Amino acid sequence: MASMVATDSSPSSAAARLLPVRLRTDAFSLRRLLHMGSTYSTTFPRYFALRPSPFPTSPVVPTAAMATEASAEVIDGKAVAKQIRDEITDEVSRMKEAIGVIPGLAVILVGDRKDSATYVRNKKKACESVGINSFEVHLPEDTTEQEVLTHISVFNDNPSVHGILVQLPLPSHMNEQNVLNAIKIEKDVDGFHPLNIGRLAMRGREPLFVPCTPKGCIELLHRYGVSLKGKRAVVIGRSNIVGMPAALLLQREDATVSVVHSRTNNPEEITRQADLIISAVGQPNMVRGSWIKPGAVIIDVGINPVDDINSPRGYRLVGDVCYEEACKVASAITPVPGGVGPMTIAMLLQNTLISAERIYNFH
Amino acid sequence: MASMVATDSSPSSAAARLLPVRLRTDAFSLRRLLHMGSTYSTTFPRYFALRPSPFPTSPVVPTAAMATEASAEVIDGKAVAKQIRDEITDEVSRMKEAIGVIPGLAVILVGDRKDSATYVRNKKKACESVGINSFEVHLPEDTTEQEVLTHISVFNDNPSVHGILVQLPLPSHMNEQNVLNAIKIEKDVDGFHPLNIGRLAMRGREPLFVPCTPKGCIELLHRYGVSLKGKRAVVIGRSNIVGMPAALLLQREDATVSVVHSRTNNPEEITRQADLIISAVGQPNMVRGSWIKPGAVIIDVGINPVDDINSPRGYRLVGDVCYEEACKVASAITPVPGGVGPMTIAMLLQNTLISAERIYNFH
Repeated sequence: MASMVATDSSPSSAAARLLPVRLRTDAFSLRRLLHMGSTYSTTFPRYFALRPSPFPTSPVVPTAAMATEASAEVIDGKAVAKQIRDEITDEVSRMKEAIGVIPGLAVILVGDRKDSATYVRNKKKACESVGINSFEVHLPEDTTEQEVLTHISVFNDNPSVHGILVQLPLPSHMNEQNVLNAIKIEKDVDGFHPLNIGRLAMRGREPLFVPCTPKGCIELLHRYGVSLKGKRAVVIGRSNIVGMPAALLLQREDATVSVVHSRTNNPEEITRQADLIISAVGQPNMVRGSWIKPGAVIIDVGINPVDDINSPRGYRLVGDVCYEEACKVASAITPVPGGVGPMTIAMLLQNTLISAERIYNFH
Repeated sequence: MASMVATDSSPSSAAARLLPVRLRTDAFSLRRLLHMGSTYSTTFPRYFALRPSPFPTSPVVPTAAMATEASAEVIDGKAVAKQIRDEITDEVSRMKEAIGVIPGLAVILVGDRKDSATYVRNKKKACESVGINSFEVHLPEDTTEQEVLTHISVFNDNPSVHGILVQLPLPSHMNEQNVLNAIKIEKDVDGFHPLNIGRLAMRGREPLFVPCTPKGCIELLHRYGVSLKGKRAVVIGRSNIVGMPAALLLQREDATVSVVHSRTNNPEEITRQADLIISAVGQPNMVRGSWIKPGAVIIDVGINPVDDINSPRGYRLVGDVCYEEACKVASAITPVPGGVGPMTIAMLLQNTLISAERIYNFH
């Protein structure tokens, strides 16, 4: 089972099992921490019991911050995603009442990957829950690229469809680039088209859609009142779907951004300078407590299965960041699961709504 | 007279007057410095006599490195640009002989800005010197946007034109974005189209053209044997035409890139960590010796006029980097003028040649 980053929704059942649900809608405490010079709080209850990490990658030298019983604010992606889905539900019904239009999302799935089928099913369920129409095409593994392109073309022309996404990965006999490029840019709710990425990179330009996972990261920071202007941000990972667009988004927010990747010498040193860390590499527990500046805010996009004989499934999910260590140093952190994962699908729904509103010029 | 970055060619007469011409085609000494652990050299002759900067922005605390008489290798953009233009000349004539095609560059100039007229004249001369055909349209200031678009459309359809550029800035009554977007992407030799920028940002994608000035910066580093993989690079400035694409290019070269900009707190601190600095902000002498890590390589894109009563013109050109201080700390540095400036126009010629070769599938 491969590690991944939270570009698809994580199973909410796992989240419910592993995490004490602790909804914080009042972001003031965090804002105060971040703006009033305190580096971390000693008043919040500890989120996880102190225990040695089961996946040590290097010896951890205890620091003054770690020796205390301080605990980071938990950035509750599940609760924020719920709130956003409620907002979308309201907006979808307002649109339907005003102009009789229901946003529609089309998903194309090729082949029989179980994880892909799960993601597609979750997207469909999420659409239903907010009142967005979903269209699904499930094609066999041996479908030709041309057949996929034909389905995309039909959805491109279908006025009831406002967003199209092709579930990745595609079977290896297809050219992913050709397939993704065929999606009409006005319906590219994944935001992966190079024209969208170019606009995201350029000052004074606006992308039609922002890729869902990095958008979800920024949205979490906004909803928790984390200011980004002038802050040092380190993005770990430079993938096209998370790391790179996340860095571009942070730069648009006037953060000072460094991108750390597999070729970086001494990633720990540069990461430790960051006021904000976004990690999206798919390496379980790679970011140790010693990598983190006291008071930093951490967004952990990694979702990595690790063996766990105590779990009924035989594994559990952990992030790129060693949570047990990080929550004693950071001022705020997303859990895995229940952090970025639920945000990705909420942003997909939001992008679909935005697309329908733009097509009908409805505000 | 506004400061600028070297996105247009600097007057070569100024370069000849201000700089001792010192051509280094042997990059071994620099390579040795960069790869063998020495941080800077004490063997090269000093490039400029030690004198106090006439534009102090903050007191300079002398460091151990500055106290020595060490001097950085001068990265001679004029010489490298000459070499590249010679290579282009050969390639243009090879193409003409083989398939009878001469690359063509069309330049559209609107209005009567003297600096713009100079740049266009320089581009035309540069085309002639390498055997590229140039096409020029000079329109009055009060031309409508539609008229400009019509000229672009004619050039888009003209098979003798392989590159089109619109000299910026345009008069304020025109929408720059509309005008630039009208250029056929296959002829966008400036590389400013968002689709090009998107492909530049994305791993596994290739832009049709790389913007000329950042491309010139990287080309200089390559020709001087500066390895980028794993190096810490700081780009100062995040403009669409230099800083942002330079950062994307460095990341493609596996450097670890940080982008410093006007909202960055303490830019000095982060800049001092860099093995490579590319500065493109248009602030004379902003980067002081104290900002520079001993042994760093510096590419200075700024071209800023400062008052100088000893010059016949009443001004001279300086970079973003305080050269007198920097050359005692850095291992290599581009002068201003004569560094990046001449490279920009060489890269424009190269992009035009690449475009013609691609259109005719000539290799």
